Amino acid sequence: MDFDIDRNDPYLQKAAELRERFARDAVDRDKAGGQPLDQLALLKESGLLKLTIPGEYGGDGQPWSKALRIVREFAKVDGSLAHLYGYHTGAQHAAYLRGNGRQAAELYAASVRGNWFWSNNDNSRANTLKGRREGDHWILNGHKPFTSGSHIADHVTITWLDEDSGKTMAGAIPSTRAGWKSLNDWDAFGQRQTGSGTCTYENVRVEAAEVYQPEASEAEAFRTLIPFTQQSVLLNVFIGSAQGALQAARDYTVNQSRPWVHSGVDRHIDDPWVKRVYGDMYTKTLAATMLADEALAVFDRVWSRSRALTFDERGKAAVRLAAANAFAGNTALEVTSRIFEVMGARSTSNSLGLDRFWRNIRTHTLHNPEEYKTRNVGHWVLTGEAPVPSGIQ
Amino acid sequence: MDFDIDRNDPYLQKAAELRERFARDAVDRDKAGGQPLDQLALLKESGLLKLTIPGEYGGDGQPWSKALRIVREFAKVDGSLAHLYGYHTGAQHAAYLRGNGRQAAELYAASVRGNWFWSNNDNSRANTLKGRREGDHWILNGHKPFTSGSHIADHVTITWLDEDSGKTMAGAIPSTRAGWKSLNDWDAFGQRQTGSGTCTYENVRVEAAEVYQPEASEAEAFRTLIPFTQQSVLLNVFIGSAQGALQAARDYTVNQSRPWVHSGVDRHIDDPWVKRVYGDMYTKTLAATMLADEALAVFDRVWSRSRALTFDERGKAAVRLAAANAFAGNTALEVTSRIFEVMGARSTSNSLGLDRFWRNIRTHTLHNPEEYKTRNVGHWVLTGEAPVPSGIQ
Amino acid sequence: MDFDIDRNDPYLQKAAELRERFARDAVDRDKAGGQPLDQLALLKESGLLKLTIPGEYGGDGQPWSKALRIVREFAKVDGSLAHLYGYHTGAQHAAYLRGNGRQAAELYAASVRGNWFWSNNDNSRANTLKGRREGDHWILNGHKPFTSGSHIADHVTITWLDEDSGKTMAGAIPSTRAGWKSLNDWDAFGQRQTGSGTCTYENVRVEAAEVYQPEASEAEAFRTLIPFTQQSVLLNVFIGSAQGALQAARDYTVNQSRPWVHSGVDRHIDDPWVKRVYGDMYTKTLAATMLADEALAVFDRVWSRSRALTFDERGKAAVRLAAANAFAGNTALEVTSRIFEVMGARSTSNSLGLDRFWRNIRTHTLHNPEEYKTRNVGHWVLTGEAPVPSGIQ
Amino acid sequence: MDFDIDRNDPYLQKAAELRERFARDAVDRDKAGGQPLDQLALLKESGLLKLTIPGEYGGDGQPWSKALRIVREFAKVDGSLAHLYGYHTGAQHAAYLRGNGRQAAELYAASVRGNWFWSNNDNSRANTLKGRREGDHWILNGHKPFTSGSHIADHVTITWLDEDSGKTMAGAIPSTRAGWKSLNDWDAFGQRQTGSGTCTYENVRVEAAEVYQPEASEAEAFRTLIPFTQQSVLLNVFIGSAQGALQAARDYTVNQSRPWVHSGVDRHIDDPWVKRVYGDMYTKTLAATMLADEALAVFDRVWSRSRALTFDERGKAAVRLAAANAFAGNTALEVTSRIFEVMGARSTSNSLGLDRFWRNIRTHTLHNPEEYKTRNVGHWVLTGEAPVPSGIQ
Repeated sequence: MDFDIDRNDPYLQKAAELRERFARDAVDRDKAGGQPLDQLALLKESGLLKLTIPGEYGGDGQPWSKALRIVREFAKVDGSLAHLYGYHTGAQHAAYLRGNGRQAAELYAASVRGNWFWSNNDNSRANTLKGRREGDHWILNGHKPFTSGSHIADHVTITWLDEDSGKTMAGAIPSTRAGWKSLNDWDAFGQRQTGSGTCTYENVRVEAAEVYQPEASEAEAFRTLIPFTQQSVLLNVFIGSAQGALQAARDYTVNQSRPWVHSGVDRHIDDPWVKRVYGDMYTKTLAATMLADEALAVFDRVWSRSRALTFDERGKAAVRLAAANAFAGNTALEVTSRIFEVMGARSTSNSLGLDRFWRNIRTHTLHNPEEYKTRNVGHWVLTGEAPVPSGIQ
Repeated sequence: MDFDIDRNDPYLQKAAELRERFARDAVDRDKAGGQPLDQLALLKESGLLKLTIPGEYGGDGQPWSKALRIVREFAKVDGSLAHLYGYHTGAQHAAYLRGNGRQAAELYAASVRGNWFWSNNDNSRANTLKGRREGDHWILNGHKPFTSGSHIADHVTITWLDEDSGKTMAGAIPSTRAGWKSLNDWDAFGQRQTGSGTCTYENVRVEAAEVYQPEASEAEAFRTLIPFTQQSVLLNVFIGSAQGALQAARDYTVNQSRPWVHSGVDRHIDDPWVKRVYGDMYTKTLAATMLADEALAVFDRVWSRSRALTFDERGKAAVRLAAANAFAGNTALEVTSRIFEVMGARSTSNSLGLDRFWRNIRTHTLHNPEEYKTRNVGHWVLTGEAPVPSGIQ
Repeated sequence: MDFDIDRNDPYLQKAAELRERFARDAVDRDKAGGQPLDQLALLKESGLLKLTIPGEYGGDGQPWSKALRIVREFAKVDGSLAHLYGYHTGAQHAAYLRGNGRQAAELYAASVRGNWFWSNNDNSRANTLKGRREGDHWILNGHKPFTSGSHIADHVTITWLDEDSGKTMAGAIPSTRAGWKSLNDWDAFGQRQTGSGTCTYENVRVEAAEVYQPEASEAEAFRTLIPFTQQSVLLNVFIGSAQGALQAARDYTVNQSRPWVHSGVDRHIDDPWVKRVYGDMYTKTLAATMLADEALAVFDRVWSRSRALTFDERGKAAVRLAAANAFAGNTALEVTSRIFEVMGARSTSNSLGLDRFWRNIRTHTLHNPEEYKTRNVGHWVLTGEAPVPSGIQ
Repeated sequence: MDFDIDRNDPYLQKAAELRERFARDAVDRDKAGGQPLDQLALLKESGLLKLTIPGEYGGDGQPWSKALRIVREFAKVDGSLAHLYGYHTGAQHAAYLRGNGRQAAELYAASVRGNWFWSNNDNSRANTLKGRREGDHWILNGHKPFTSGSHIADHVTITWLDEDSGKTMAGAIPSTRAGWKSLNDWDAFGQRQTGSGTCTYENVRVEAAEVYQPEASEAEAFRTLIPFTQQSVLLNVFIGSAQGALQAARDYTVNQSRPWVHSGVDRHIDDPWVKRVYGDMYTKTLAATMLADEALAVFDRVWSRSRALTFDERGKAAVRLAAANAFAGNTALEVTSRIFEVMGARSTSNSLGLDRFWRNIRTHTLHNPEEYKTRNVGHWVLTGEAPVPSGIQ
């Protein structure tokens, strides 16, 4: 197969090395859940946490697509670390999208200095965290669900409802802030180490300067890109998982599988059935990969437009991202379940942990249903109208 | 839905009560794996272990279809117990299929007296157990894989290769026999309590009288029905699991699921998408159930023919069973994965354990690939020739 | 295969003979479209037009399921004649459903006497025919679309909008009535001889006695069964077409197809691919057939309840019919397109006309979309509520 | 949608204009079959027949991908003309692949001078044409099936079996050659104007100079590219047909379709079902297009390697082409059948001719089964071995 990352790129080469490290205990960590602390340390050592921060703030100035290819690479063996790295990247840019230039600059620089790992507390569907202005600061109480990465984060981007105005406010705080707590209570059957559980707030103080303050002159289209940062992470977790599952299955089939008793062949791989199933899974995964590659290119272009981005450009890009995401999720669901058909009964051993790919995808695809992405694409086909920007599309 | 068992039948009524008992800790036992000892005790108390033993030997004289409906009922909540009960029934009849009339009679009677739970050590693909005749007994050494139920069995039907002739021999021994051991080492991600791991043999003595001795005059077609007993168990584990997963999902969707943020409906169940997915899953499960019901009726007819059964009758029945099995497995794979789409992100919680349905089906469908069953059906469509009887078809 | 009709039943035996006659020029008539006049004559000779009329009026008193099995039998070779015979049966019973006892009795008797072929002009979605009461009669002007069978009918059941009240009126008139005209303008690519085009009305006089006058005491559930009569016809056109296409393809494959150049087999039927595709198509068609058979039994029970039928009974039956219909339509669409894959390039010859099966099904499935039937099933699964009776469900 | 051809490219602009011309009577010509003579005249006028002939011989020196995009553009409205133009291009290059440099040069130049339209008589599965050497020429007798384009061709590339050696010989003759005849007998239900029927040979004389004489030093990999030229034409007929069917359906749905009676929406396009189906068809067609675009780029690179091409390069390219072809064919089959679901009952009118897309694809996909292409891909995934070059892969 040819889903290899470009090893001539030093960042991708590092990512490939990390993938190999992560692979060693991926099965055990899937069983354990909780916090991937050793892997976080490796990520920090690697320097990849500042990959997409502009050079002027000490980052590597790499495009989003580079980060997303790393997400994909990690997902070949470990969907959780892929997810965490991707969401870190998104949270790291929240001030740039939602705040003003000074805030973005300060947080970029601090992030590089501190080699911060970021997470978010900004699930847009939850109205469970509220805040009250008190002079030069805010006091927050409540909780947030689905806070991926918060169990290991240094800095956290947050949103809450202003009790007075009913408006959504956004900002960022260190994870050491008094009263803030990650319960580390994520216990889904997939994406086990993402820490996507609950964070609680007990009189958490947020300084006014920590609250994102959009500039008056700001064009709004760019400010609506948060869903792009999240959807593109999901997309590449799907792609990498499909590729990784296919590769692992192929290796098992070649090395371990025995021909079916009535097959009439000496090698399982010579059974026309086995060839067909692998050919079909590969072809679909390749098609998904090409849609994803194009979506990455589109995202880079949109991002590089920055505050000049128009809603029309945003809309067309959203359709491409939605299409790629829907196709990738469906493909990954099929591949991660179907591989067993051509590996055979012994491939279900818990020591191999090959079901984690399906469990990861089945869990992760629920966070933005394919149905609605596909409807958005269809609505655009029929009317030319792109999805109305919201917290999730 | 209307997949309820007929509660007017006292055996099925008992099965339904047991299902409710099994359901209480099915999720925990799925996590634990190992031996379902309390459930075995309940089964013994229920009297259902002798369900299909002819009345003249103290059994209830019920048809195979009754046992298989119980398999289906258990599978709604616990694929392992369904599997164990079904394989018990098959092993219990092995002497009737493979031995002579006297052996069958004695083992039926002893089974009723002892309220035995049976398992098998007769995986037909493994040549890993060998025996040597020594006067009035045999000495067996080696091991057998995929020995479902042997971790809790009272009596075990076994097969081995005769070192001298290379022929397969069959018989039955108590699980207390010296040198025989169930390693209780099954660690697949599905069918977790079936104990489908390894049994080892260290100088195990098998008396000549324990070896099945087919009668000279015996018609051979009936002796080839072992695969029917196993395939029909798989079929009904598939059907029950699909029905049970669908029912559990429906209840979750009705009681727990929230509408998608862009759905424009107040109740998740009013989303046309949710209706369609449930309608489609139900329709396919209903179609699978009808194919299965007809296969049960066919099996009863074939079984009741006993030694008068012809190969032609056997062949036609095998095609129907293969078709039902293939369709049921495919349907169950689809339903057990797709239910999450319409339950939503929180349905992946390990406390609910809803992924066990997919894990069970994914594991169980590998024990006789759909590809080969479907090819057999197609070969019959094209040529009128039924599958050549073997250990697995 | 075993989709043969029961030849011991004299009605089904006649149907099988007619099927063989219809098969002779089915391909040519598919190309020609228009009126199947010779086939209508054969139907009249056969006596099958009065099949389901109660014995007391001179009919054969056979159940609906018998007529629908004949629909299925005809559809194996000719979807148009199947459709026409089924819709004839429905129109023949319209007075029984919508009129009073005397009207039904008179029309049943007249239908037997005249050996009438019936059609309908009652498409429920069209408000294009209007009537005005003038003393003891009505005057109708306008047109009706989708008037299957009207191009060859003796008697026509009609509906129109009363200009004064806006209510839908129903009745029956002879096709010789002045001012009524079938344009014979149906030109779809499928169901080519069904005459499902337009009928025009120019001052058509309908006597008061010809207008269906429901009895005051009548229970309403039974009056809502018109959609059952139509949906069950579609269902059996789908089933028969799938069975017929599969049988025709099998015969072609066995007798004509050559193995693929890289297959390594001498006979095309020995290619595992070909076996699998036939096995899969057969299994799905068998599952669809079983759902349909059960729906026929349900329909017979509902029909036999007559005016005692409750809405609850009606609702449960509607769900089963919808499920069977949706599954059958999807199966027939798949089978009628996929057969070519295993017949090969030469099977596309217009002289064989094998594409007519897909064209028939593709056309016929559009007359009540699978989406809405499946949603209805899903709504019932989720809420226990059956579809609200209307002109089409 | 955005499947538009790049109108800034003068060749593609011409192709788009031709497409619009072809669209005017595409439905009528589909019904008529036979020879598209007016369209051939338009093609000749356009200058596009010499598109890929190197500039040194008077051609436009454009890459294969340019011709294939034109195939795709024509296929949006007329699969036959797409097919004919693509096969013309392949036949035009046969001497370059199979002959020596001088022969290729002469035929390129003559082709430009004469503005020739080419076809082939080289179906590799037929051994029905034989030749005998007689001094300075050959005498051919027999026939060839599947001779697309020969009913309108100026020059024909041919292959035959040498009666003495049993070897396959190749060459080219004018269609005016005595004894050669196109029967114009193609009567399939799809690709109606491709003239893919029979050519007969009655003592046809082929001069020795007309027989392709490969150079001794020639590298063989390049000589095996004939299947690439044909497979890539099929690929782009599939892609263009899917795109064209989707576009036509969308326009119909937007302008003509009425909402379903129980939909609760005012516009059919506001039904979530309709959005979803269009979204899904578009996404799959987009994925197929991206695989195809990449396959075109791969083919250009392979072609540009000319006689330096290695078998390893050829093999990798063949896998990509096979994957793209299989995916495109499956997608086109689905799209061309499914569009009717969201257009509704009236879209089946013969005056619209919208079923021609399915008929074209169903016919065209049989000329190199998806099963074998997918097996080839799977074999490569499992073993790293590319398909062994032959006349068709």
